[in-house]
Amino acid sequence: MIQFSKQPRKIAGNVQTSELGFGRKVMTDGRMMNADGTFNVERESMGSWDNLYHQLITMRWGYFFLLVFCCFIVLNAVFAVLYCLLGIEHLGGVQPGNWAENFANAYFFSSQTLTTVGYGHISPQGLVTSILASIESFAGLLAFALISGLLYGRFSRPKAKIVFSENMLIAPYSSGRGLMFRMGNASKSELVEAEVQMMIALNQRDEMGNVLRNYYPLALEINKIAFFNMSWTLVHALDERSPINGFSEQELAEANTEVMVLVKAVEETNQQTVHARRSYTTDDFVWNARFGPVISRNRKGQPQVLLRQIGSFELVG
Amino acid sequence: MIQFSKQPRKIAGNVQTSELGFGRKVMTDGRMMNADGTFNVERESMGSWDNLYHQLITMRWGYFFLLVFCCFIVLNAVFAVLYCLLGIEHLGGVQPGNWAENFANAYFFSSQTLTTVGYGHISPQGLVTSILASIESFAGLLAFALISGLLYGRFSRPKAKIVFSENMLIAPYSSGRGLMFRMGNASKSELVEAEVQMMIALNQRDEMGNVLRNYYPLALEINKIAFFNMSWTLVHALDERSPINGFSEQELAEANTEVMVLVKAVEETNQQTVHARRSYTTDDFVWNARFGPVISRNRKGQPQVLLRQIGSFELVG
Amino acid sequence: MIQFSKQPRKIAGNVQTSELGFGRKVMTDGRMMNADGTFNVERESMGSWDNLYHQLITMRWGYFFLLVFCCFIVLNAVFAVLYCLLGIEHLGGVQPGNWAENFANAYFFSSQTLTTVGYGHISPQGLVTSILASIESFAGLLAFALISGLLYGRFSRPKAKIVFSENMLIAPYSSGRGLMFRMGNASKSELVEAEVQMMIALNQRDEMGNVLRNYYPLALEINKIAFFNMSWTLVHALDERSPINGFSEQELAEANTEVMVLVKAVEETNQQTVHARRSYTTDDFVWNARFGPVISRNRKGQPQVLLRQIGSFELVG
Amino acid sequence: MIQFSKQPRKIAGNVQTSELGFGRKVMTDGRMMNADGTFNVERESMGSWDNLYHQLITMRWGYFFLLVFCCFIVLNAVFAVLYCLLGIEHLGGVQPGNWAENFANAYFFSSQTLTTVGYGHISPQGLVTSILASIESFAGLLAFALISGLLYGRFSRPKAKIVFSENMLIAPYSSGRGLMFRMGNASKSELVEAEVQMMIALNQRDEMGNVLRNYYPLALEINKIAFFNMSWTLVHALDERSPINGFSEQELAEANTEVMVLVKAVEETNQQTVHARRSYTTDDFVWNARFGPVISRNRKGQPQVLLRQIGSFELVG
Repeated sequence: MIQFSKQPRKIAGNVQTSELGFGRKVMTDGRMMNADGTFNVERESMGSWDNLYHQLITMRWGYFFLLVFCCFIVLNAVFAVLYCLLGIEHLGGVQPGNWAENFANAYFFSSQTLTTVGYGHISPQGLVTSILASIESFAGLLAFALISGLLYGRFSRPKAKIVFSENMLIAPYSSGRGLMFRMGNASKSELVEAEVQMMIALNQRDEMGNVLRNYYPLALEINKIAFFNMSWTLVHALDERSPINGFSEQELAEANTEVMVLVKAVEETNQQTVHARRSYTTDDFVWNARFGPVISRNRKGQPQVLLRQIGSFELVG
Repeated sequence: MIQFSKQPRKIAGNVQTSELGFGRKVMTDGRMMNADGTFNVERESMGSWDNLYHQLITMRWGYFFLLVFCCFIVLNAVFAVLYCLLGIEHLGGVQPGNWAENFANAYFFSSQTLTTVGYGHISPQGLVTSILASIESFAGLLAFALISGLLYGRFSRPKAKIVFSENMLIAPYSSGRGLMFRMGNASKSELVEAEVQMMIALNQRDEMGNVLRNYYPLALEINKIAFFNMSWTLVHALDERSPINGFSEQELAEANTEVMVLVKAVEETNQQTVHARRSYTTDDFVWNARFGPVISRNRKGQPQVLLRQIGSFELVG
Repeated sequence: MIQFSKQPRKIAGNVQTSELGFGRKVMTDGRMMNADGTFNVERESMGSWDNLYHQLITMRWGYFFLLVFCCFIVLNAVFAVLYCLLGIEHLGGVQPGNWAENFANAYFFSSQTLTTVGYGHISPQGLVTSILASIESFAGLLAFALISGLLYGRFSRPKAKIVFSENMLIAPYSSGRGLMFRMGNASKSELVEAEVQMMIALNQRDEMGNVLRNYYPLALEINKIAFFNMSWTLVHALDERSPINGFSEQELAEANTEVMVLVKAVEETNQQTVHARRSYTTDDFVWNARFGPVISRNRKGQPQVLLRQIGSFELVG
Repeated sequence: MIQFSKQPRKIAGNVQTSELGFGRKVMTDGRMMNADGTFNVERESMGSWDNLYHQLITMRWGYFFLLVFCCFIVLNAVFAVLYCLLGIEHLGGVQPGNWAENFANAYFFSSQTLTTVGYGHISPQGLVTSILASIESFAGLLAFALISGLLYGRFSRPKAKIVFSENMLIAPYSSGRGLMFRMGNASKSELVEAEVQMMIALNQRDEMGNVLRNYYPLALEINKIAFFNMSWTLVHALDERSPINGFSEQELAEANTEVMVLVKAVEETNQQTVHARRSYTTDDFVWNARFGPVISRNRKGQPQVLLRQIGSFELVG
């Protein structure tokens, strides 16, 4: 049986559920946001070209090139079949043979037309085949114009490459305790004017005993920096102003706690505002731990940020 | 005869007509904004390349490709005619025939030059034909550079794909009534930092009995959310602070009421600010109705937004 | 001899000369800004690629295409000369002739290589000519990639096409007089969130009798509108809060008065912030005049903005 | 032995070290920022395509074209080797010779395929060679689509070309002294809404005698201008509100003083926000000097900014 240890508390500046855009009744189980910052929500598909563009822009580079290559093969083959149907004798320079040889020759002619390489040792003869070849070369140029646009869209898409610590630590801080995580900029491009928001989602019972999903902001000691070029440890002090002050490890788990982190910064190379998100559940919490060193010196005496150790921690006390 | 049931009222934060950019004397009939958010205004045409660009960027994909294809055909044909006029004998590899055959051959040569496929089984001979072919291949490359630019411009144009409920509902809300509509994000790309403004336009008589078109803001219970990834129902409470508090269905119709909705959000894939607008007239109002459910669970237990049901409602009491 | 009729006055919110970025001692003669909004200042040239880009992006379309075409001709010709120098006998398919025939053939081969049309009736033979042809086809592709980029840069450059009235009118306004101008959006793309600032520059004598160029803001009755889709008349009331209250026509002329107008808006198709500027001198002032009508109805009953009449005015009493 | 002449002082609006994003314990030796505004920090490499893009976009034009040309040569050669391995007899039109001749012919065929020039005097024969040629022409088009995207990315990257004076001057200012530098816009594109922040980093001892690196903002007389089209001299008054009021030349040097300058402006051609940074150490300070004249008149009587003299100064009394 699920337990909710605490009543909701009044917090100044309380983020209303509805102001986040999440329902207050939905999702008392499960999490709102996946660990990588995507939302744990499905939107019914309403197929459109814009969504196709969105997917072509955001898919991984490997898949993108594979997809483009497959389209090239398929488009080539479709035109090759059409040339065969119109008659292999209309492709000048080709010796008619069996169907496989004919298809191969038609395919190579098709490919030479689509890419506009047009060696000319095979050339279209007759009205219909010439028209088809004309259309194919046009289609080829259009396709490569599309690919140019997609490639540039992929390049120039605003992205933050921020690495987060795998865990949130609950560690001694000031005279009490703090909830903390650490992050670093893994991109060569500088991030400036970085700003962080932290929110917590908790299941709590109201006075009527109904289970509600409540959302609270978690105040950060420092939530804005001018240059985010080193590592940055963000700390929420677990003092009397915190909505989870005094919660035990078990109470947080029972409340199906989720901590969401929102980062906003300006990426300097393209002067674009970029966002990054991260979500932590109580499974990611480590009690009584402290982050390990992350900055050393390189041979030239410059400070060096060891991004691979961004999540390293050691247990204390 | 047109009736205007109410005198203008003093509202704190009243949007001045002129501050909207609409005239106060124009348009006491008709609507300011079409249902899809475009303005019901014509601007005298001052033909320019920029407007051409605007149209090429905003026209539908089907029309765009059709237009590009037609341009390709026409450009091809124009050069073909020029090659014929210069003499078909200057196209090496072509057997002179009747004018139709000559035009067809010239057309295919033209197409092979424009797309730079250049098989070479037809090739230019003589000075003038060679010069023309040189210019055509240059024009071809330029044209495809233009198309590349246009395609990318179309891809990357900031757009919000927001679906709105077809109707505005007037339904019981809190201890009184509310005017409400619902919307959802139909794009795969997330919208964040969404913000909504609602305004009403009414014909009213001033103390002198003149008909004026007055504009008022309609306060929303919540007008900003951090994540717009579910559906969002926006509510204007029809209480004593509302400029249309106490208006009957007939009074609203007589005042030629128009409710305008302005949405602003950040589209996350390209980090662009996007706008959407919607306008409702009293024909779109449904009294005593409530929006039906729009969120279900999918097989994986995730909340699922049923965008096709965004406008579904049921009558109450 | 130059007269300055008035002492500088203390204005709340006075724009300090230095805060505009103009010197207080420079330019007591001449104007700061040309009528079209460009600055009347020269910056010593520090030649760089970025400035080249700036010029290629901002030059007129006709010049741009002419320039690109000339580059094409010149590049073609340079390679043609190189092919001739390497020996016309290395271009297979060409009958050696006199130098003009050789150059023509080399030029056509060059053009076929640069555009990658490559018919093949002329083809490179021998090592050095083949290497040169390889480099030329590479250069051609690179050049057309550059042109694609420039074309898109030209298309997508944020621009406001705002038409301003040719004159500033000084007309009866409210219980006194107002200084006014009118403007309209000449682009098909909507402008939203438009905002205007108006400033005046005057030569004035300080207490020591030195001539200073002073800058003041001119308050506008309305300086922000939500939608700029009709015409917009901007009015500065010449009342006791105005820095030029009570100035006569002659006094304004003697003070070498310049009124600068800064417009800022969001262009909706690309969601870009755009700026426009306009400067008026006393030569552009018309006293005792009122703007004529600019909005009519089209056949469909929609309001229609007659942009060509944006500057039309009639003299009054 | 290192001396720190002053205790930290309490300054209203003191920039906390951590709010800048720099550590308070790191870097009491060395500087935080290099003279050109890049950070003196290394981030451990986490190889990714985005970083590759970043480098391709930010490298110098000469290197960029050299790199692209080398890639072209290498890709050509790799395919040439493959054609040789498949057998030179599969390249129709080539006379088999020794390996060098074969490689040269294969290389030229490869180049004609990659650039899609495809003269056709050499053409692929046989299944495998034809397939390879098809793949190569596809790869060529993809590569040039990539280059188009990179070129546009390089063109359109937001950049400010601001020239700074080489030195910071400490000169008589008002009734006391001021710390000043001068800068100018070296781009043809106008900069508007320019804003400057100045910060100082000092080594100081706290009450316990520990060496800390403290950061303070340096207030500027004017830190915002509407138009940055002339030169701009920025002045920090060394009065009682200054954190370095009363510091001697030697004390500043001993404290390993670094003054950082952050400029932010809107570049008008592309309406992009651009940043520039500059860092000065005490080696760049000149005491008792004043900037020389930088504005003259050109032949047309327009003010002319002499950017090459932006750093010129003369010693005073």
